[in-house]
Amino acid sequence: MGVGDVSKRILLGRKLRSTQLGETLLPKRVALPVFASDALSSVAYAPDEIFIMLSFAGVAAYSWSWKIGLLVALVMLTVVASYRQNVHAYPSGGGDYEVATVNLGQNAGVTVASALLVDYVLTVAVSISSGVQNAAAALTFISGNEALVASVLVLLLAALNLRGVRESGTFFAIPTYGFMLAILGMCAWGFLRLLSGTLPDAESAELRIIEAEGYEGTITTVALVFLLARAFSSGCAALTGVEAISNGVPAFRKPKSRNAATTLLLLGLIAITMMLSVITLANRMSLRYVDPHDFERLILPSGEPVPPGYDQHTVIAQIARGVFDNFSPGFYFVIAMTGIILVLAANTAFNGFPVLGSILAKDGLLPRQLSSRGDRLAYSNGILILALMAIGLIVAFDAEVTKLIQLYIVGVFVSFNLSQLGMIRHWTRHLRTETDPAVRRRMMRSRAINTFGLGMTAVVLVIVLVTKFLAGAWIAILAMGTFFMIMKAIRRHYDNVGVELTIEEDDQVLPTRVHAVVLVSKLHKPTMRALAYAKASRPNVLEAVFVDTDSAATARLLEEWDDRRIDVPLKVLYSPYREIIKPIVDYTRSIRNANPRGVVAVYIPEYVVGRWWEQLLHNQTALRLKGRLLFTPGVMVISVPYQLRSSEVAKQREERLLHQAQAGDVRRGRVLSDQVKDRTSEDR
Amino acid sequence: MGVGDVSKRILLGRKLRSTQLGETLLPKRVALPVFASDALSSVAYAPDEIFIMLSFAGVAAYSWSWKIGLLVALVMLTVVASYRQNVHAYPSGGGDYEVATVNLGQNAGVTVASALLVDYVLTVAVSISSGVQNAAAALTFISGNEALVASVLVLLLAALNLRGVRESGTFFAIPTYGFMLAILGMCAWGFLRLLSGTLPDAESAELRIIEAEGYEGTITTVALVFLLARAFSSGCAALTGVEAISNGVPAFRKPKSRNAATTLLLLGLIAITMMLSVITLANRMSLRYVDPHDFERLILPSGEPVPPGYDQHTVIAQIARGVFDNFSPGFYFVIAMTGIILVLAANTAFNGFPVLGSILAKDGLLPRQLSSRGDRLAYSNGILILALMAIGLIVAFDAEVTKLIQLYIVGVFVSFNLSQLGMIRHWTRHLRTETDPAVRRRMMRSRAINTFGLGMTAVVLVIVLVTKFLAGAWIAILAMGTFFMIMKAIRRHYDNVGVELTIEEDDQVLPTRVHAVVLVSKLHKPTMRALAYAKASRPNVLEAVFVDTDSAATARLLEEWDDRRIDVPLKVLYSPYREIIKPIVDYTRSIRNANPRGVVAVYIPEYVVGRWWEQLLHNQTALRLKGRLLFTPGVMVISVPYQLRSSEVAKQREERLLHQAQAGDVRRGRVLSDQVKDRTSEDR
Repeated sequence: MGVGDVSKRILLGRKLRSTQLGETLLPKRVALPVFASDALSSVAYAPDEIFIMLSFAGVAAYSWSWKIGLLVALVMLTVVASYRQNVHAYPSGGGDYEVATVNLGQNAGVTVASALLVDYVLTVAVSISSGVQNAAAALTFISGNEALVASVLVLLLAALNLRGVRESGTFFAIPTYGFMLAILGMCAWGFLRLLSGTLPDAESAELRIIEAEGYEGTITTVALVFLLARAFSSGCAALTGVEAISNGVPAFRKPKSRNAATTLLLLGLIAITMMLSVITLANRMSLRYVDPHDFERLILPSGEPVPPGYDQHTVIAQIARGVFDNFSPGFYFVIAMTGIILVLAANTAFNGFPVLGSILAKDGLLPRQLSSRGDRLAYSNGILILALMAIGLIVAFDAEVTKLIQLYIVGVFVSFNLSQLGMIRHWTRHLRTETDPAVRRRMMRSRAINTFGLGMTAVVLVIVLVTKFLAGAWIAILAMGTFFMIMKAIRRHYDNVGVELTIEEDDQVLPTRVHAVVLVSKLHKPTMRALAYAKASRPNVLEAVFVDTDSAATARLLEEWDDRRIDVPLKVLYSPYREIIKPIVDYTRSIRNANPRGVVAVYIPEYVVGRWWEQLLHNQTALRLKGRLLFTPGVMVISVPYQLRSSEVAKQREERLLHQAQAGDVRRGRVLSDQVKDRTSEDR
Repeated sequence: MGVGDVSKRILLGRKLRSTQLGETLLPKRVALPVFASDALSSVAYAPDEIFIMLSFAGVAAYSWSWKIGLLVALVMLTVVASYRQNVHAYPSGGGDYEVATVNLGQNAGVTVASALLVDYVLTVAVSISSGVQNAAAALTFISGNEALVASVLVLLLAALNLRGVRESGTFFAIPTYGFMLAILGMCAWGFLRLLSGTLPDAESAELRIIEAEGYEGTITTVALVFLLARAFSSGCAALTGVEAISNGVPAFRKPKSRNAATTLLLLGLIAITMMLSVITLANRMSLRYVDPHDFERLILPSGEPVPPGYDQHTVIAQIARGVFDNFSPGFYFVIAMTGIILVLAANTAFNGFPVLGSILAKDGLLPRQLSSRGDRLAYSNGILILALMAIGLIVAFDAEVTKLIQLYIVGVFVSFNLSQLGMIRHWTRHLRTETDPAVRRRMMRSRAINTFGLGMTAVVLVIVLVTKFLAGAWIAILAMGTFFMIMKAIRRHYDNVGVELTIEEDDQVLPTRVHAVVLVSKLHKPTMRALAYAKASRPNVLEAVFVDTDSAATARLLEEWDDRRIDVPLKVLYSPYREIIKPIVDYTRSIRNANPRGVVAVYIPEYVVGRWWEQLLHNQTALRLKGRLLFTPGVMVISVPYQLRSSEVAKQREERLLHQAQAGDVRRGRVLSDQVKDRTSEDR
């Protein structure tokens, strides 16, 4: 009889499903808002950054703004076209990390992962800072306290995610569609008023902008090109978040890849429309916008600079106030929706962080326990680390979007580049074996798109690096380097352990005998249970062991032992200094030394209690002892639990935690089981 | 064959002793300094407090100072005489707590324990504050930063004790004998100069003291009595620490009780001599001393008050400066020794806290693990709690001894009173059965002494309560109440658990069968070891269980399982959402449900690593799983450790910690083994 035949393999599980997590697949109309908030929200700050950069050369340079807008739109379309290829080729949801790892090797994959991790932190910092800046237009008390308000918001988001937000399609749909309605509605109304000739000027229209130092008078072509390059790379902030869909393909309805690709295209078109509309309206309304540190360059009609406390509202706020000058609810709706979408965008980072973490953990780049759902401790730590790093950035840069944006785009474009490069390799490899001409033609076309995408994103990355390295991108690169090193070190450790643990010939040798030792501290139910379990295991030798720290207690125990007629010999270890652990460890070691091929089984009766303070009152010695025994070779430690009544409390708490929603569940196509039933009929 | 005969009882231990802790018993000349620092050091602040109180009624009231000193000396002698009885009756070292518990019941014992715990905190706060105040006479930069310097000193002491000070007789002897030499030498030299008529006035002699508000002109008798009572109760600070010897009797050489009693008497006499000498010299040198907040009552010869920044040196510092006006090394020696003895006195609290904690833990009033030596975690927490509470007091009272002393003495006298009351009960009880007339006479005498002691300490307690309650004693009483409640709650919990765990008839029933489950995450050495150990235990059913979170990994494992021809059936649990813990818990539960009288043995292979960050990378899932399985009835959890090479690091660290000295070791008669050999020949 072959050994394989003995193996009984039963695949359990389907029936478990109903009792725990269920899944809903997202139709396009739900998937769009779930994945769009990050990408769309950048319309709230990308135009502002373009105008700020151009303002260096005075208002005249604003005429470049729509050209830069078009260029950003072109890059956006290219990236969208490229990622549509990714979505088809890698529908498993690994995203850029998977593409880079599979096609370019582990180092490229780890680089992408580092870039994405840094990106998550910056998404939180930039989105929240921008949201706070935007809200300042409606809530004046925020002005001057931006960093504080932003930090509190990050903490709030972290708390919400720690608690477990029960996400649903609606959770994302209302704010995202609301934001689209607000911006597109505002722009449409603005264009109508423009056509009818009633579009008012922006509140800042009467201001004059002085050129920044170095840009006075006619500037050199080099200086102009550099300025336009900086404006362009700031505008590229609009591209962040486009890649999100490629991580979420598994959550789409079938045909998954095609639906994801369509949604991606839709997302790109909406984002471009919004951005270009906002830029056009801003120009038509003669909006003036400078870096908040450069207010002395903003001149009032009286010829004096604006006062230092001048409250410069964001581009969207200024447009909304102008367009809706006769309908203030419209203004407040735009401001509110912009604030909400920005917070939601920050929330996507809290969603994506654990998802990426679990993928990295599975590949041994982060602690393994991150890979299993339900390890709340590791998961919570991830959320806390993300929040703390984001708050660090917010405080360090005083919640100024213009400064934070300098760090932002590097990471995104590093992963764009490596992903496109990986895709080219992917198609080339497949072309080598593919013979069907139709498929080959499709692959060639895909490869061409990815090659164009790589060219475009490579140029942008170089521009971003050149224009932003000293302005802050170096910090992002340093952070990426740090993440890279940590992940490589973890992987190296796991690899070393793996080698050390590889099975050798002598690993199948059985121990010759089992010497069981039941630790006794008192004669009570847990001890009796441990004795019973130990006896049921029928070891070669069985004895109870008691550490004598007090001769009166010892005498009492011996007497009771006899009275109860317990048929297990009791060994008393004398410990003159009331140590418990050392005598036991020494004793097990001596048993093992006398019988090097045997194994010592140490049975420890344990109380199971429910409340944290009860935990402090029990088992502490057992815990320490277990820790020590683990270092002794040839010993196995058996915990025999005895559930006290209060343990019910903890059991129920554990159950609750297990069923609690976790951030990112919707993006992974998971919802809790009681939602499944409601949704199944509706969605499928 | 009786069950009792089967029991094999071996008393191990004596041979262990040489490898771990040894003990040295203290001769009187070593015991005196070990236990004296707390009691003797109060001479550094008790006279100051007497003079401060009397100064309210002007310099004229200083004439009462030696009478108050004599009264304090009388109380001291009474207390010493009483405690000599305690030492004979309770040589086990339980001290006041034991006396109160045995004779007056648990509530009295817990009250005494609470009082002692509060006392330890105050000993640290008062001693360090006084030491800093004293040092300010020599190191001027301390003035104005007393609270900061004192807090840093407390932290330093805590750190030293956390690290483990290798204490020895010398550690205590040099500073204590140095302090005696310094104070008694100074006084002797001062009296010689007094006799020869060359004793100079103190630096403050030319100042005039204005009476405090309410004490101007001739004051009423009531006011005077109240003032004297306050001065007296402040002076009673000299009595703190006298009871220390009664906790340390076991550390004395034989005859333990007699040696301890002699040392106690010696200690009392030295303390009284010092205090009275200092008071006398201060009077003879026309020393002026007021509360540092009342400098406006201190008038210069010019008729103006001293400037607000006036640097008032402590009584001992002023005397030393005067007596050694022609020999400045003498002055610095006194200052240095006073500072050192005060720090040493604070250190005794760090010593006494764990000792008392272990006694309370043994009685179930504090977490049990405190009762065994070597639980460094609990022990360290104790030291940290003590340090933080002391720092809290120091900061709250700005390191002002005069304010802190208001809180101090209540606790001491509460325990004095309950202890004396307990002793009276003790003798009365013994007299009931004792028939030997000689012994009866001795007992009657002892009871008379304790009765007198009780009367005396009761009067002092009332005086202290009346004069100090509002001045701060209420804080100490509140703290005592809190400790009392906590300890009672802990005891109640242990009692409830004890009842719940009492063995009933059906507790000796054996499980009918053992179903063993070996958890497999991968096929490597730890898994093989777990399988081997499980097989060696010969369970009724043995199977390996693997959670399928990734079908590729599952397929690989199944293949390897067959290749290696492992003769244990492998069960695969399907987990669509990458959960590990839930499927295993559910599976064990289903086994148990199918066989309610059987037991499930879950074998978990564990890596043992050495560094904390490695610990983070391994076993986290195993740890969580164990936590969950403990809540499942009928399950025992078996850790099968596999020691990785790096585990050696941790093993060595553990060994080092186990051999490290712990605060209070000397007081418990313990020293480390390598000292034992050196000392045995010398001391015995």
